[in-house]
Amino acid sequence: MQLHPKTLQLPGGFLAAAVKAGVKKDATQYDMALLFSQEPATCAATFTTNQIKAAPVKLSQPRAAKGKACAILVNAGNANACTGPQGMRDAKAMSARTAEATGVPDAQILVCSTGTIGKPMPMDKVLAGVDALCGSLTPDNAEAWHTVEAIMTTDTRPKAVTAEVKIGGKTVRISGMTKGAGMIEPNMATMLCFLLTDAKVAPALLRRLLRSAVDASFNTISVDGDTSTNDSVMMLANGASGAEIKAGSAAEKAFAKALNAVTLYLAHEIVRDGEGVTKFITLKVTGARSDREADTAARFIANSFLVKTGWAGTYPVDGRMLDAIGYSPAKIVEEKVSLWYDDMRVMKNGMRTKDGHSNYLQVTQKPEYTIRVDLGLGKGSAVLYTCDCTEEYVTINRF
Amino acid sequence: MQLHPKTLQLPGGFLAAAVKAGVKKDATQYDMALLFSQEPATCAATFTTNQIKAAPVKLSQPRAAKGKACAILVNAGNANACTGPQGMRDAKAMSARTAEATGVPDAQILVCSTGTIGKPMPMDKVLAGVDALCGSLTPDNAEAWHTVEAIMTTDTRPKAVTAEVKIGGKTVRISGMTKGAGMIEPNMATMLCFLLTDAKVAPALLRRLLRSAVDASFNTISVDGDTSTNDSVMMLANGASGAEIKAGSAAEKAFAKALNAVTLYLAHEIVRDGEGVTKFITLKVTGARSDREADTAARFIANSFLVKTGWAGTYPVDGRMLDAIGYSPAKIVEEKVSLWYDDMRVMKNGMRTKDGHSNYLQVTQKPEYTIRVDLGLGKGSAVLYTCDCTEEYVTINRF
Repeated sequence: MQLHPKTLQLPGGFLAAAVKAGVKKDATQYDMALLFSQEPATCAATFTTNQIKAAPVKLSQPRAAKGKACAILVNAGNANACTGPQGMRDAKAMSARTAEATGVPDAQILVCSTGTIGKPMPMDKVLAGVDALCGSLTPDNAEAWHTVEAIMTTDTRPKAVTAEVKIGGKTVRISGMTKGAGMIEPNMATMLCFLLTDAKVAPALLRRLLRSAVDASFNTISVDGDTSTNDSVMMLANGASGAEIKAGSAAEKAFAKALNAVTLYLAHEIVRDGEGVTKFITLKVTGARSDREADTAARFIANSFLVKTGWAGTYPVDGRMLDAIGYSPAKIVEEKVSLWYDDMRVMKNGMRTKDGHSNYLQVTQKPEYTIRVDLGLGKGSAVLYTCDCTEEYVTINRF
Repeated sequence: MQLHPKTLQLPGGFLAAAVKAGVKKDATQYDMALLFSQEPATCAATFTTNQIKAAPVKLSQPRAAKGKACAILVNAGNANACTGPQGMRDAKAMSARTAEATGVPDAQILVCSTGTIGKPMPMDKVLAGVDALCGSLTPDNAEAWHTVEAIMTTDTRPKAVTAEVKIGGKTVRISGMTKGAGMIEPNMATMLCFLLTDAKVAPALLRRLLRSAVDASFNTISVDGDTSTNDSVMMLANGASGAEIKAGSAAEKAFAKALNAVTLYLAHEIVRDGEGVTKFITLKVTGARSDREADTAARFIANSFLVKTGWAGTYPVDGRMLDAIGYSPAKIVEEKVSLWYDDMRVMKNGMRTKDGHSNYLQVTQKPEYTIRVDLGLGKGSAVLYTCDCTEEYVTINRF
């Protein structure tokens, strides 16, 4: 399996288009994209668990559940969330116009939006954008790269990856793109991710593989603890490579490995490009009474802004991390806690070590490091990929 | 009942002392204080619910439970938390030295610390400080004011209030001081609060009145959602005024009213002086299925940093607030939500109003305003006093 970071090579049978429709404030930026399979494709998707769901999520969720889709239409700049019945009419109109122009059944079009919550969609611009997209679909990878740019909001860079894997003598591609960059928390972050593959995968298997990949990637990251109204991961599989993935086969293992590599790469990219982020922290909790409590402890640490602002500095914030677990539902006994920054132990038996507290700069000045908290209570463990919080996060979000 | 903000007048029979012991980095600042009743006093206290408790909390909690105390010894600059067995020995040594110098039984001395977590206490300085405190106890209110300064950490100003209430022809005082200013969340925030009264109140009644006052004040505020290791509210009642408060009497009502006014004033002062705070928000949630769900919804809103950074700006962040309730355990149905900034309705049936979104500046530019979210589902309601989050919060905490 080969992973090509920072590229988006369209798998066989897929076309793409991106336009500057004027939905984003800056009219020089791409803000709408269409991903399109020329052949019938299966699909799977996961969506936000938020009770407040954007109109496109409400529209696309039941469609994706049917397992068949061949187009993903997306706009950035407006989330079409908290927009009431008009919002749903707008999402449907986006889909209907795409169906009309491409000849694909309406029910096989998935719609996504990302951007500001609560504003009506500028439908004149959006529908003109749909027309332009449908008229310019191309297999050209340069155009495909513009689709990655089109879904960006406060992201500072496009995030995409292409995996290639040999299956039954055929080369299968899994190509993925994603966007962050705030309102990012596990259980589907404010994020969109689109995955395209030219393998042939039955809907039920695709669903299982995607769920597993999402659990091990997007559901293990946290930027700011806010789960959004629009989170969507969508995957289309069109079989154009001629390779078929059957449940329980060696091909499934190879395909799953590639898919997991793609989603984990993209998830990490979201954290690295989180709003104002300067540190990428791999947070491991071990020795919890259960995996579930380890996960809870990790999430309370990663969602404490006192911890996150501390990570933006260089002094170890072991005390703040203990404090955060202390008010979580996860069991902690002060005297049993050990804590490492990379290999440097900064806390033992709930107390700071002299060595760790004189040599911490060799770890904390690095842009990426691992923090491990061992609770000394059992065998439960969890990993979370997270980041610091700087003044820039506030500046971006206070508008 | 009269409330005198920004004053600390000692009730009858109380002495105070403050010193610059060098525990804080800045040696020109007061950092230790002793509050002392010349007569035997009853006491009540509430402490952090964090599983990680500072040594002075572990020492003082069982003592306060006995209902008798006549001294509160406090230092700022070092929290004596995550300091292991040595931390407990240090807290005990602070108490023992005070007992020796004042002749008060060791078990009737309550000890508090606030400041950095995880550092050993500089006991040479601390014990010299205790000696100096015991030697300079005075009924002078100017000295008492220095005790308010001594407990400050990142607070930008001293926070104190004195209430006077007539009970049975006698003037009873309730004097309170508090400190914040980060790691502030309901269920006892990172805060200390000391309350002194010259009323005579039996321990059980004092406990009940204090618990009720704390629930309606300190437990309704949130600065950053972090519950600390050191939170303590302590109250001493020495009866020096000659007025006795009996359970079920009119005196109890008058006393409770004054006590509640004192604690609510101090709680609000903590929020107003929260780290980097520029907006004081009274957040009301109504129409929830239950009071408990209303409280949950309010806390999820108040602890979303995406909401809080938005409050630092002037644009209404109704969408972000709905989003935050959406991922909370509290039930929300988008179409039923209304939302007001003061009297201006910015959202109706889950959609933005035109009026609210053109006139919002008249509210959002004010330093203090009320936000009400009506969920339209039932009769549950809750109030939370909270604040925005600015770049300065990050700057203070990233060190």
